[in-house]
Amino acid sequence: MADIITVRDPHDPRLSDFTGLTDVELRRRREPAEGLFIAEGEKVIRRAARAGYPTRAMLLSEKWLPAMRDVIDASGAPAYVMPPELAEQVTGYHVHRGALASMGRTPLPEPEALLAAARRVVIMEAVNDHTNIGAIFRSAAALGMDGVLLSPSCADPLYRRSVKVSMGAVFSVPYARLTTWPHGLAAVREAGFRVLALTPEESALPLEAAGPHRLPRVALLLGAEGDGLSERAMREADARVRIPMAHGVDSLNVGAAAAVAFYAATRA
Amino acid sequence: MADIITVRDPHDPRLSDFTGLTDVELRRRREPAEGLFIAEGEKVIRRAARAGYPTRAMLLSEKWLPAMRDVIDASGAPAYVMPPELAEQVTGYHVHRGALASMGRTPLPEPEALLAAARRVVIMEAVNDHTNIGAIFRSAAALGMDGVLLSPSCADPLYRRSVKVSMGAVFSVPYARLTTWPHGLAAVREAGFRVLALTPEESALPLEAAGPHRLPRVALLLGAEGDGLSERAMREADARVRIPMAHGVDSLNVGAAAAVAFYAATRA
Repeated sequence: MADIITVRDPHDPRLSDFTGLTDVELRRRREPAEGLFIAEGEKVIRRAARAGYPTRAMLLSEKWLPAMRDVIDASGAPAYVMPPELAEQVTGYHVHRGALASMGRTPLPEPEALLAAARRVVIMEAVNDHTNIGAIFRSAAALGMDGVLLSPSCADPLYRRSVKVSMGAVFSVPYARLTTWPHGLAAVREAGFRVLALTPEESALPLEAAGPHRLPRVALLLGAEGDGLSERAMREADARVRIPMAHGVDSLNVGAAAAVAFYAATRA
Repeated sequence: MADIITVRDPHDPRLSDFTGLTDVELRRRREPAEGLFIAEGEKVIRRAARAGYPTRAMLLSEKWLPAMRDVIDASGAPAYVMPPELAEQVTGYHVHRGALASMGRTPLPEPEALLAAARRVVIMEAVNDHTNIGAIFRSAAALGMDGVLLSPSCADPLYRRSVKVSMGAVFSVPYARLTTWPHGLAAVREAGFRVLALTPEESALPLEAAGPHRLPRVALLLGAEGDGLSERAMREADARVRIPMAHGVDSLNVGAAAAVAFYAATRA
């Protein structure tokens, strides 16, 4: 059983995990430093708990208590109950999904451990958009990719927006951070992966011709929307591949390109 | 040469095309009824003009005049110049991209005419989310789909958000509306297309096995995020196909699923 505590003061210090959620810059610094992240909505909170993340606290309106009761009891963490209009003063926005949980982060696996257990991975370089990160995790989970590696400058997959867009896939697809870049890619090749860099360059090999689905171990290297991959990262890859595109058209959105590449790499 | 007119009154009736842009319900009704749509930002405005849509008026801040000068002159339409803080009172939001154009709609092609010239089309049923519509058009353009057919209840591809997310692909990929649903799909089959309904159902044929890239003419039928295709629409299809997914995972986002299906249908 957990404590269910009615709170009426938006400045109550026990709510500090939930303050200023709309201030992206603040939360970006605070959450990793304080070892927490925010899960939003019943479905995502349940998935985070099921994945083994410890609950630090919950914040919800009274009407969500019955639906969340079992989660609260199992968590052992305090649940703060507040009318939506007061909660909005804490968080900075109207929480449509009714419930928020602050969860504790757990240590990330080492890249080597992740690679040892994987056959299909995606590696992102400098992907900074939380929506794109979330979308890529969602597609990776759906299409059966085994893991994600992040360059040091990629944004945090546990940021609220990424978690939400991923529908909780950030909890189910294992991920790790490479600490040196792009030299960390050498470890991926040494683990037996063929590293394919996705690029719109005309000179790159068409994705089908690279036959990613026939490779025993394949790592798909993706850059950020707009900038794409850096030249130095591409030089660490085994090959450059492109998704054939119609002439005179902007490239695919990075989320769409990722889904296509995952499909090509995982199809039977 | 066009008129460049400085306006200081946000209630000036000449600005009526641009009022209340954040009121989705209002704009949804007004824009088709008044035969207009809004293009936002230099790139998208240029693409709309290049695609042959007539400009009715532009609204921009002084600092954007030099960059837009050639577009304004070529359009022959009045350009209203307003400081951003006043323009915000007209539109309801801060226009980050600096310039707005109201453009006139042009008649949509008949589905039969569109089908006669196409080999690869996508058909959407009841896709109501403007972001998803825009994303699907962008991927359709990039991957070389020839056209889009919309069920009667699909949202408007020319709504501002769709236009923006599509990066202007709504201007380059021809689209038409089927007026009867789902019986209008019979005309697609009669035009020689094999209609493949995308569904997560386990009993459906894996997408690769259906070999869409080997079919002379193929129509990919997609439903909305969440609800998916209606049973009655699926009954009008030639076959049901699925993108193989990992167990226990939510399906792909409809935009990601569309990109995968377009790739499978267009790859060499």
